[in-house]
Amino acid sequence: MSKSLAELCEVLGQYGMRAELDGDPEHRVGSVATLEEAGPGQVSFLSNPKYERALARTSASAVVVSPDQRVPSGIHAVRTEEPYGAITAMIVALHGYRQHVAPRMTGQQTIDPTARVGENATIYPGVTIDREAVVGDNAVLYPGVYIGPRARLGNDVTLFPNVVVYDDCLIGDRVTIHAGTVIGQDGLGYAPLGGRWVKIPQIGIAEIGDDVEIGSNCSIDRATLGRTVIGNGTKFSNLIAIGHGTQIGEHCMFVAHVGLAGSVHVGDHVTMAGQAGVVGHIRIGDHATIGAKAGVINNVPDGETFLGQPAVPINEAKRRLVHAAHLPEMAKTLKALKRKVAELEQKAAGNREQGTGKPG
Amino acid sequence: MSKSLAELCEVLGQYGMRAELDGDPEHRVGSVATLEEAGPGQVSFLSNPKYERALARTSASAVVVSPDQRVPSGIHAVRTEEPYGAITAMIVALHGYRQHVAPRMTGQQTIDPTARVGENATIYPGVTIDREAVVGDNAVLYPGVYIGPRARLGNDVTLFPNVVVYDDCLIGDRVTIHAGTVIGQDGLGYAPLGGRWVKIPQIGIAEIGDDVEIGSNCSIDRATLGRTVIGNGTKFSNLIAIGHGTQIGEHCMFVAHVGLAGSVHVGDHVTMAGQAGVVGHIRIGDHATIGAKAGVINNVPDGETFLGQPAVPINEAKRRLVHAAHLPEMAKTLKALKRKVAELEQKAAGNREQGTGKPG
Amino acid sequence: MSKSLAELCEVLGQYGMRAELDGDPEHRVGSVATLEEAGPGQVSFLSNPKYERALARTSASAVVVSPDQRVPSGIHAVRTEEPYGAITAMIVALHGYRQHVAPRMTGQQTIDPTARVGENATIYPGVTIDREAVVGDNAVLYPGVYIGPRARLGNDVTLFPNVVVYDDCLIGDRVTIHAGTVIGQDGLGYAPLGGRWVKIPQIGIAEIGDDVEIGSNCSIDRATLGRTVIGNGTKFSNLIAIGHGTQIGEHCMFVAHVGLAGSVHVGDHVTMAGQAGVVGHIRIGDHATIGAKAGVINNVPDGETFLGQPAVPINEAKRRLVHAAHLPEMAKTLKALKRKVAELEQKAAGNREQGTGKPG
Repeated sequence: MSKSLAELCEVLGQYGMRAELDGDPEHRVGSVATLEEAGPGQVSFLSNPKYERALARTSASAVVVSPDQRVPSGIHAVRTEEPYGAITAMIVALHGYRQHVAPRMTGQQTIDPTARVGENATIYPGVTIDREAVVGDNAVLYPGVYIGPRARLGNDVTLFPNVVVYDDCLIGDRVTIHAGTVIGQDGLGYAPLGGRWVKIPQIGIAEIGDDVEIGSNCSIDRATLGRTVIGNGTKFSNLIAIGHGTQIGEHCMFVAHVGLAGSVHVGDHVTMAGQAGVVGHIRIGDHATIGAKAGVINNVPDGETFLGQPAVPINEAKRRLVHAAHLPEMAKTLKALKRKVAELEQKAAGNREQGTGKPG
Repeated sequence: MSKSLAELCEVLGQYGMRAELDGDPEHRVGSVATLEEAGPGQVSFLSNPKYERALARTSASAVVVSPDQRVPSGIHAVRTEEPYGAITAMIVALHGYRQHVAPRMTGQQTIDPTARVGENATIYPGVTIDREAVVGDNAVLYPGVYIGPRARLGNDVTLFPNVVVYDDCLIGDRVTIHAGTVIGQDGLGYAPLGGRWVKIPQIGIAEIGDDVEIGSNCSIDRATLGRTVIGNGTKFSNLIAIGHGTQIGEHCMFVAHVGLAGSVHVGDHVTMAGQAGVVGHIRIGDHATIGAKAGVINNVPDGETFLGQPAVPINEAKRRLVHAAHLPEMAKTLKALKRKVAELEQKAAGNREQGTGKPG
Repeated sequence: MSKSLAELCEVLGQYGMRAELDGDPEHRVGSVATLEEAGPGQVSFLSNPKYERALARTSASAVVVSPDQRVPSGIHAVRTEEPYGAITAMIVALHGYRQHVAPRMTGQQTIDPTARVGENATIYPGVTIDREAVVGDNAVLYPGVYIGPRARLGNDVTLFPNVVVYDDCLIGDRVTIHAGTVIGQDGLGYAPLGGRWVKIPQIGIAEIGDDVEIGSNCSIDRATLGRTVIGNGTKFSNLIAIGHGTQIGEHCMFVAHVGLAGSVHVGDHVTMAGQAGVVGHIRIGDHATIGAKAGVINNVPDGETFLGQPAVPINEAKRRLVHAAHLPEMAKTLKALKRKVAELEQKAAGNREQGTGKPG
């Protein structure tokens, strides 16, 4: 599936990116690799200036770079304002996405007679589809996947091994969920009745929107009542915990180990960095950004970036961090001042004696 | 399974809750829903005053509220001191708990001939019960569950898909474990011998008490020697890590992403909020509360609430937070003082000259 | 498999440890237990002085202790500089490592005809080995394990239930991976193209070195390009997240809930304590130690210990913590100083009047 640089520049154009070719348009590349690992016939890229030294040493025959980037002689350069986007388009063009091949194995799926599976589905042995569940067209269900009673999956859904969808939960179209993730387990819902924890039946569901991708080993609670929601186009990394009744908007991006308590409302296009946490019953606005390890305990307005524990607007958080770093120095200054003031007080007392006790 | 409001008030009485009905005792409701989603024939509730606006707009025909709560006209109100407990009792009465239906599928479980399974068990295809394991009466084991050699499960245990119980571990009666949780894997036990890590055989076990519920994708280490213990009635959310040899008391509640190192001793009725962590070999007293994201590095006395990193008593933690927030202001004050003191010192030096060098 | 204390001391010698026996060399012990739980015929140990009180009360008939430790009369003592190492060697000698017994069950594995499995493998029913995958000699694959297309496992690999190895990933020799861990899922790789997230095909792999042990429910991303690497001899606890393209050196030890973003470079012999996090594209030197809950945002030099959020060298982190704890006191001192300086200023103004306005 090799392509000439001219063909690849055409591909970029289809994505709306302008590119300028500084080299031979007929040069052909067959695959993409990192600057360190690329060899002849491969195209690489420089997006993060931190890796500029690797560019000087690369054996790639072509590179994607920003317009003004110096490139070692002999390497064909594709220049564009968006090197990262451009190399993405080239990876898609040269490598494509993972192909799921229908298994030729002889094992057995266990599909309840009342369940329905759409056309052209790839169901591995070891998949279980429980009663009255519905699986859409073109589904790819890997071994160990369990679809609970009455759960419904849209079309073009890919569930990697051991993904579990609890009873009644809904999965949209074109959803990908990685191995070991669980959708719709009961949340931590107990009421103290008569001196003991009484479990609150979790009669709500979890609903995953269209075009969502979820990493591996995540846990998305079902709602106590109503729905836990992951909005269309949202992307999750691994080991993320979402509490019952929390509703997340569209096109968000959450990094690994993010944890949201229950009944949180998250807007659209929200970014949450690694290990961030959010307490229950608050609201995070559209286009907000939450820093790594932040502990969010109050509402976050649209478009704001919050950081710290507790999380505050980023400028305030940075100011506090700077001052915290200077604390030892501040303590020293304070101590010195205390001494000086004591001296001044002593002198002042002396002066007063001088001034009053020795009248001219 | 609809019930009249009079019948529901009777149910509350059975739980020891007093309720006063402000409406038609013969009005029937069939299900429970949130204030936003409820419609005619449904009962909802207001427990958190934050959601009072939703009460004004609800289409529920009945609501559970606190005694003095104003309720829109036309809505039947059940008034009680414990709206949250009351709605819990109503969910149980109207919806009941999840029913596990014996699978009608044709797949196969793999049960070692030396294993024993109690009466009335629901064992899905895709379950593996290894040699000499014992599964009690009324067990519900979903697909992908693995019960290791010599492990023993009590009666009325429900294990959701892909739960793994390692060799020799013990699970009490009436235990529920959600999908993907692992009980009894080896802990991080290595000794540096002859310049390399030598694995310490983890010959202890993990023991889960009666009436415990554990969320999805948790990891409970077995002990190196002896037992890792989760006490009776304790409830866990998702993605919780418990280190080897740690012993947790009864009726505790742990939120998602909590992590305890090894050999920790946790008392009864302890609450740990999300993403809290505890170092090894310390003791957390009965009825203690650990705040979200806290990093506990010292013993916590009975009944105390600890917060922060490192975790300290909540009042101290709050005091530090308040002062940390004022740090920029403090730095400014300190700078101004420094200038003033310098001026005073200069003046003092001048005064002294005046006082001594220019005698009257 | 009981052994005399003389035999056990010989075992220690084979590991290069010196031991002195303070008791009967012919006394036989059959197993190892904690001080609290040990009884006659069992050997226990004291390594952490915190547990000295348990030594006074133990019913063990023999104990491993440091050279100068006082031991209750009647208990045989093995004295050594390394009690923890010594008891490890004794656990290995008396208990050995877990034996995996070939299943006698009648269920079915599903192995693609183009996959290859080495000699003497123990493959449980419920295992799936996909097309062109290679599994080495002496493999032990528990139920629910999935080996993706073209993945390759070395010899003597043990994968506990529901471990998933994605397509093309590589697992070395003598690797153990605990239940529910996922190797090689796609990382969080999207480029904003034309106003939406476009998934970057993750064409790299994850590669696990020889002698690695990984805990349960971990998630190791495959690389976007090239390789995510876990180096030889490295040990992981549970629920650890490793981002795409991150490369971890040899003989590291990571505690539960550690999270590393993508493109991190970690040296050899690095220790990361629980819930620590590392941002992308940085470098952590050999023999570095990262404290619990630390948030690493800058390179860490070889041999350094970093702590805090953001993580700084341990001495600096401790200094800041001490000062943060004194903040309330500092604020008080500052307030008092402010008052005194104001008084001094007033007096100075008075003095000046005295000195200049009332000439003698």
